[in-house]
Amino acid sequence: MTYVLLNHDITTRENVKIDMEDRGYNFGDGIYEVIPVYNTKTMAMEEHLNRFEESALKLEIQLPYDKETLKQLLEELKTKNNITNGIIYVQMTRGVSPRAHLYERNAVGLITGFSREMPFPVEQKQTGIRAYVTEDIRWLRCDIKTINLLGNTMVKRKATDHTCQEGIMHRNGTMTEGSSSNLFIVKDKLIYTHPVTNLILNGITRQIVLKLAKENGYKVVEEAFTLQQLSNADEAFITSTTQEVTPVTKVVGDIETDIPVGSITKALQQLFAEHVKNKTK
Amino acid sequence: MTYVLLNHDITTRENVKIDMEDRGYNFGDGIYEVIPVYNTKTMAMEEHLNRFEESALKLEIQLPYDKETLKQLLEELKTKNNITNGIIYVQMTRGVSPRAHLYERNAVGLITGFSREMPFPVEQKQTGIRAYVTEDIRWLRCDIKTINLLGNTMVKRKATDHTCQEGIMHRNGTMTEGSSSNLFIVKDKLIYTHPVTNLILNGITRQIVLKLAKENGYKVVEEAFTLQQLSNADEAFITSTTQEVTPVTKVVGDIETDIPVGSITKALQQLFAEHVKNKTK
Repeated sequence: MTYVLLNHDITTRENVKIDMEDRGYNFGDGIYEVIPVYNTKTMAMEEHLNRFEESALKLEIQLPYDKETLKQLLEELKTKNNITNGIIYVQMTRGVSPRAHLYERNAVGLITGFSREMPFPVEQKQTGIRAYVTEDIRWLRCDIKTINLLGNTMVKRKATDHTCQEGIMHRNGTMTEGSSSNLFIVKDKLIYTHPVTNLILNGITRQIVLKLAKENGYKVVEEAFTLQQLSNADEAFITSTTQEVTPVTKVVGDIETDIPVGSITKALQQLFAEHVKNKTK
Repeated sequence: MTYVLLNHDITTRENVKIDMEDRGYNFGDGIYEVIPVYNTKTMAMEEHLNRFEESALKLEIQLPYDKETLKQLLEELKTKNNITNGIIYVQMTRGVSPRAHLYERNAVGLITGFSREMPFPVEQKQTGIRAYVTEDIRWLRCDIKTINLLGNTMVKRKATDHTCQEGIMHRNGTMTEGSSSNLFIVKDKLIYTHPVTNLILNGITRQIVLKLAKENGYKVVEEAFTLQQLSNADEAFITSTTQEVTPVTKVVGDIETDIPVGSITKALQQLFAEHVKNKTK
């Protein structure tokens, strides 16, 4: 039997009945997080739930209970579903009200969640992925982890149409991030990634990788880089909860270039793998 | 008893059970329309359903049945709910699939809808509304009538916080549209409104008003205008299905200005009222 989360309850799927006037369903008015599970243990739960709270604050949605309770429920969900390696997905919408653009400030949100067994990428981490470069057409609050994700899904579709595993985006030639990942390049041993602004989602894996890089003597430059700089990069990689640290070895779309899997990317993968091991032993 | 639409069926609310992995609920992956009802008759149903089809095409979602069937179902919904003056709301999401950004092309959509009695504005049409001017932070495909509406709802919240009835938006000083309306100004007897591009939703009421204006000898200029031009406008008004033609008499926010209810606005209101009468008698 598969269990899901519905507000305070771990229950079965057939007990979840989303209303047709849930604001999540009419406006995409909600937020989410994806938490990794390694070897039956969650990783970075605290960081994910902190960001969940931040997103809720930015959209002025009130959590129905405190973070500690949510944490316990998500752990229970994972355990009941016997997840070994995979993800926990949790979302919160502003709940049900007669459809109207105007929202009531600090309405209590509706939480749903599921967990899923999902193998982490092995081959892609070694050989790298193809990335499709295209214009970033999303809104100007990409810092909030909302379920208004059409721009992201459209880029993912385009990427797949070009036999790419990820879409990476630029605004007027300045690279921002991937459709569900953050983007990095390495040039002359410096690691570049877009700074934390309204134009990107500050990924938890991004934060872990930057911390590990700095602790291990790598030089990090949180500065936006251009299509041209991507073309000339020594290395390129993406980070995300499900993709971890994955090299980008071929870029197609608005520019085309081949990039080798570099030594700094490999070192960061190694550091990340050790980090996971330490955190989930 | 209140009836709603669920795919092929006119049914009651308790029979509608949206899945927690409906893409509408996880990604705001869907489209919608709002059709007005005057004196028990729908107006511009054909135009709304044509746009619904266009939105579906742009997002590559397949309707579960043809437009004529949808039309009959929406008419039946309205009749069963005894709507005299109000709206029919219909939305279609990409339906249920295990959560992943990548969508399957031309999946068959899930349609839901409701109808609601709702008085059209009387006083606001005479005295005008206050509008709050702020930055347009939305994505670059505002031409698709999707349920990714967070940018719009946030502007509506801000507008209400400033005791305004609508938020109107600009991109770098160029006015686009309202949070749920199109925006017009009149200057030296010329009627200005943003042209049909990816930056605005081409409202059905917008189209009707432009047609009526031209047929009656008014000169229409579909050109974007600036904050500055709005400041210096002789008249300003918004159009939408629920707001019809409503004057903007006070602007606050990024600029502040008072604008009288002008003669061309009044003439267009009159023409629109006659149009409604003709179309719904």
